[in-house]
Amino acid sequence: MKCRVCGKLYPESAINFCVDDFGPLEVTYDYEAIKGQVSRDILERRPATMWKFQEFLPIGPDQPIVGRNVGATPLVKADRLADALGVEKLWVKNDAVNFPTLSFKDRVVSVALSKALEFGMTTVGCASTGNLANSVAAQAASAGLETFILVPADLERTKILGTAVYGAKVIGCLGTYDEVNRLCTQIALKYGWGFVNVNLRPFYAEGSKTMGFEIAQDLGWRLPQHVVCPMAGGALIGKIHKAFNELYATGLIDTPVTTKMYGAQATGCNPISDAVKQNREKHKPIRKPNTICKSLAIGDPADGIFAAKLVRETGGWAEDVTDDEIVDGMKLLAQTEGIFGETAGGTTVAVARKLIEAGRIPRNEEIVLCVTGNGLKTQDAVFDSLTAPATIKPTLAEFEQLSGLIEAVLV
Amino acid sequence: MKCRVCGKLYPESAINFCVDDFGPLEVTYDYEAIKGQVSRDILERRPATMWKFQEFLPIGPDQPIVGRNVGATPLVKADRLADALGVEKLWVKNDAVNFPTLSFKDRVVSVALSKALEFGMTTVGCASTGNLANSVAAQAASAGLETFILVPADLERTKILGTAVYGAKVIGCLGTYDEVNRLCTQIALKYGWGFVNVNLRPFYAEGSKTMGFEIAQDLGWRLPQHVVCPMAGGALIGKIHKAFNELYATGLIDTPVTTKMYGAQATGCNPISDAVKQNREKHKPIRKPNTICKSLAIGDPADGIFAAKLVRETGGWAEDVTDDEIVDGMKLLAQTEGIFGETAGGTTVAVARKLIEAGRIPRNEEIVLCVTGNGLKTQDAVFDSLTAPATIKPTLAEFEQLSGLIEAVLV
Repeated sequence: MKCRVCGKLYPESAINFCVDDFGPLEVTYDYEAIKGQVSRDILERRPATMWKFQEFLPIGPDQPIVGRNVGATPLVKADRLADALGVEKLWVKNDAVNFPTLSFKDRVVSVALSKALEFGMTTVGCASTGNLANSVAAQAASAGLETFILVPADLERTKILGTAVYGAKVIGCLGTYDEVNRLCTQIALKYGWGFVNVNLRPFYAEGSKTMGFEIAQDLGWRLPQHVVCPMAGGALIGKIHKAFNELYATGLIDTPVTTKMYGAQATGCNPISDAVKQNREKHKPIRKPNTICKSLAIGDPADGIFAAKLVRETGGWAEDVTDDEIVDGMKLLAQTEGIFGETAGGTTVAVARKLIEAGRIPRNEEIVLCVTGNGLKTQDAVFDSLTAPATIKPTLAEFEQLSGLIEAVLV
Repeated sequence: MKCRVCGKLYPESAINFCVDDFGPLEVTYDYEAIKGQVSRDILERRPATMWKFQEFLPIGPDQPIVGRNVGATPLVKADRLADALGVEKLWVKNDAVNFPTLSFKDRVVSVALSKALEFGMTTVGCASTGNLANSVAAQAASAGLETFILVPADLERTKILGTAVYGAKVIGCLGTYDEVNRLCTQIALKYGWGFVNVNLRPFYAEGSKTMGFEIAQDLGWRLPQHVVCPMAGGALIGKIHKAFNELYATGLIDTPVTTKMYGAQATGCNPISDAVKQNREKHKPIRKPNTICKSLAIGDPADGIFAAKLVRETGGWAEDVTDDEIVDGMKLLAQTEGIFGETAGGTTVAVARKLIEAGRIPRNEEIVLCVTGNGLKTQDAVFDSLTAPATIKPTLAEFEQLSGLIEAVLV
């Protein structure tokens, strides 16, 4: 592992920051060695899961794997959404149907928990209110690991259910996000437990790359010109781009990476998009996030600086959208492509629309939108915007009297 | 198409029963021709979706396809569930992460709507409260088809949301299931619309076969000895078995089919399992189904006779379980394999346990359980059985005081 700030090297262990400068650690690879191990043909013959890219993940070939079936989600050619947005070539990378818990977090958790097994850990956990908690609880259960999930004390019980059902020990915490994260660090240090996004973070983060590998493979081993990606902590966008570079470094794609990366946030919590638009190197933390898009509402994102830098360097951009635009984005995606993404998906679609309309993304080039979670988990967001159904007796006469309905269809 | 009762042949059209005896129509194939078109190697090189088996589906090679990305869900090697059930070799076929709407209905709807396009239909629909409605609405939206979904008038608005979000016209009906189905038939006849499980039923039903094809492929082109499958209308269990026979007829598997098929129902609506257990050829309709497992609660199943016959002929069996057992089954699946299946999944697991304990399924043979939908859609069922979380201030001291929690883990 290598410090992303000073470059100092570390052996693999359950730490996530450099002891000299507190810079985040990142896993490094020997790409020349990987080049000799994999080819397009070899990869295409492996089972369709994210683990076909194991050489690019920090889990050795003989290690046990948690989440063997994660990934390989559809890259959907989205012609009807393309028409609606006024662009020519559009795809949706749809992690809303990821195994086992319907979000891209299944990828990162799969790597983190595999590493936890390798380190001999028997207890794991995370602090999360949503997708991450679901995935840690589910995949830890599948590996027989004990699990502690720390959630805000006021979280609705319906949201706790999707985590508690897997047998995880769910603990409500009265405190801020930062205080809870600090507690996780203390517990991890004292008991040697694996908190996926704390002491296992360098391994965890690598899992996101598989979304990038899969996009390239499904396009026929080449890259799109533009990728729009939601930003919460800011890691995913960077890891997708890292994946593209790794594919070039190992000869799996033929040309250097020129893909432009675009970041999507909610206006109610937009530290990274604000930094990009204001041309600031470091984002200003948002103290009180206020948006329906809870899964992106990280006020002080750990990878904010790196994400803003990446967006600038690739020639992309970042944008944020209001809650109303997010709901419109969710409905547009559902009604054109039959994909019910969560609020973060609506954010990505709405930001893409804004960037296209502003001329930031050209209408005649290839665009991939990353949908990272399932709308069933954030149903409340769209509930009020849908009309209640008409009611009839089950007769043809009553059906035909439903004013406007039939006419609208028959015209 | 051929009548399943008298064998009379029909050209392909939007009808679902024989005009002579009202027997259901079934699509027929030329297996010798298919044998010349596909091989294991050809199939393995196609994209991982159910449409790799297109030669076995009633959609010609040049026809447009709705739901191009459906299927290819994971066959999960379920070692921890196997231990819990006391068996040696167990897999879960997990359609809870199917694209786009997280149930096996995505398979049947994909075929039905593809056929609707071929027939030139521009409006489609169904009568359903759950998975079928979600899938028709989503996939019709992706194809730009107008959609009418008929639901019971008293259905909760939260359940309507998962269908209405796709832009479908949802209509509440004050009447019994039978009355609503009759209305669908009338509308289909008068307006030429495609109701997926009415006038498109023969095509629709074929989609279920792909679950069987995928099980065989993922086992390495061979069959398990036992398959446990939920039964609602009773079609799925028959179609999985039909798929196995078709694989043998076309040389894709080497040995004749000896797989025993087991049907799972809820005790609160058990017409088919009751018929099997009472050794009756024809099931007795259940007038008032009473179970938390709504997706299996069809009192007078269209394929009930065929399902009971198949179970008997293959040497399998059928069983039903109480609501408490269903909830226990859901939790067991979640807590051993990290798979949150809907109530029908809990039913399947609980029935498998019952059959294993009764000695009907031997403990040392290969078993596949079919999980056909996602637990996020039936969360209410397990809600009351989960305990509320403990609450603490985010300090190590308070965390450690949580009585019993840490000790339980550290022992």
